[in-house]
Amino acid sequence: MDATPFFQLLYWDALTEKEQNLVEENIRTLRFEKNALVLGGGDCLGLLLVTKGRLRAYLLSEEGREVTVFRVGPGECCVLSASCVMSQIHFETHMEAEEESELLLLGSGVFRQLTEENVSIRCFLYEMAAERFSEVLWVMQQILFMGFDRRLALFLVEACRRAGGQQLKVTHEQIARDLGSAREVVTRMLRRFSEEGLVELGRGTVTVKAPEGLERLADG
Amino acid sequence: MDATPFFQLLYWDALTEKEQNLVEENIRTLRFEKNALVLGGGDCLGLLLVTKGRLRAYLLSEEGREVTVFRVGPGECCVLSASCVMSQIHFETHMEAEEESELLLLGSGVFRQLTEENVSIRCFLYEMAAERFSEVLWVMQQILFMGFDRRLALFLVEACRRAGGQQLKVTHEQIARDLGSAREVVTRMLRRFSEEGLVELGRGTVTVKAPEGLERLADG
Repeated sequence: MDATPFFQLLYWDALTEKEQNLVEENIRTLRFEKNALVLGGGDCLGLLLVTKGRLRAYLLSEEGREVTVFRVGPGECCVLSASCVMSQIHFETHMEAEEESELLLLGSGVFRQLTEENVSIRCFLYEMAAERFSEVLWVMQQILFMGFDRRLALFLVEACRRAGGQQLKVTHEQIARDLGSAREVVTRMLRRFSEEGLVELGRGTVTVKAPEGLERLADG
Repeated sequence: MDATPFFQLLYWDALTEKEQNLVEENIRTLRFEKNALVLGGGDCLGLLLVTKGRLRAYLLSEEGREVTVFRVGPGECCVLSASCVMSQIHFETHMEAEEESELLLLGSGVFRQLTEENVSIRCFLYEMAAERFSEVLWVMQQILFMGFDRRLALFLVEACRRAGGQQLKVTHEQIARDLGSAREVVTRMLRRFSEEGLVELGRGTVTVKAPEGLERLADG
């Protein structure tokens, strides 16, 4: 198994030869269909590295409401899928494959062993975790504190950046799920944006007409 | 300066003698009156250790709303007051002294230097940060998602007032419809209330046993 992409992530040079072999022997490849569940609540798979596709991590409320908290794209890795390796940290996230995806996985058993015997790996784990948590907190703060118009504007600005264009193929339902809101709220706000000339609404599409206006709104 | 309390926290044995001296020479004592601001938004003091009193960390919305996210008591330390030492992490918290307090501070300059030259200190930093973040996230999730216990308590308090008594003739289905939720969620939460002695569940009835307890819950 070519563990190259893991090498740089895992502070490869800080590993002993024995540890390097352990990683190489234990990396597995996982494939997921679009929309397949990758990580259920409470699951602890291990260290993930996305090689193809994209994962979406979300929180799930007791009422079944989803809030998207981050995405993991090609070349990126995620340690929150190894939460059981971090003592004293209790955080449950769900993950699904947003597209057909391929991952490299270092199982939680071997990963735990490495973090226990090598402080550099341990450092890698917590550094990555802190970084993700800070991302998740940012999203939560948005929801709690920011006005919904700003959040929606920010969503559209970022979606354009990801799509590399101004016509977005996205339903109000999808936007609502992403923003932890209700479809009606999204529709109402999009209609306001449309009246203000910021966007144009089509069937299953939102076209951004005034990106600068949206960016101003997103910046507050 | 007696740096003893820092010793164990900072993985003291992992420090070289030179590093140990650096810490001892650079620890300062800070004292705060009750209600004094310890950390403003965007401030980066350094590594804090509370020796007396208690700090309260909170987030502040643009509209000035506060949300308490954690407390730091005697013998506990906090790295989120050194956020500038963590690259790629953007998180702004405020802190105030909830009581008259005394802290030991290792300034961000020296702390940064130590994290850069010693991977154990770096590990300590991110481990502590991840732990705090996970605490903060739990609080945020409660606010965002667990609002349901409050809403249900409020519903019951008002229903008693309307009924002029404590025995309510109402099905879980009716409550769910009223609160825009699912029957299963209502049933689960009522069962929790029942275990806590707040209500007694009968066939088609909910009897409130501890109205003060429910009111406290409803008030948040």
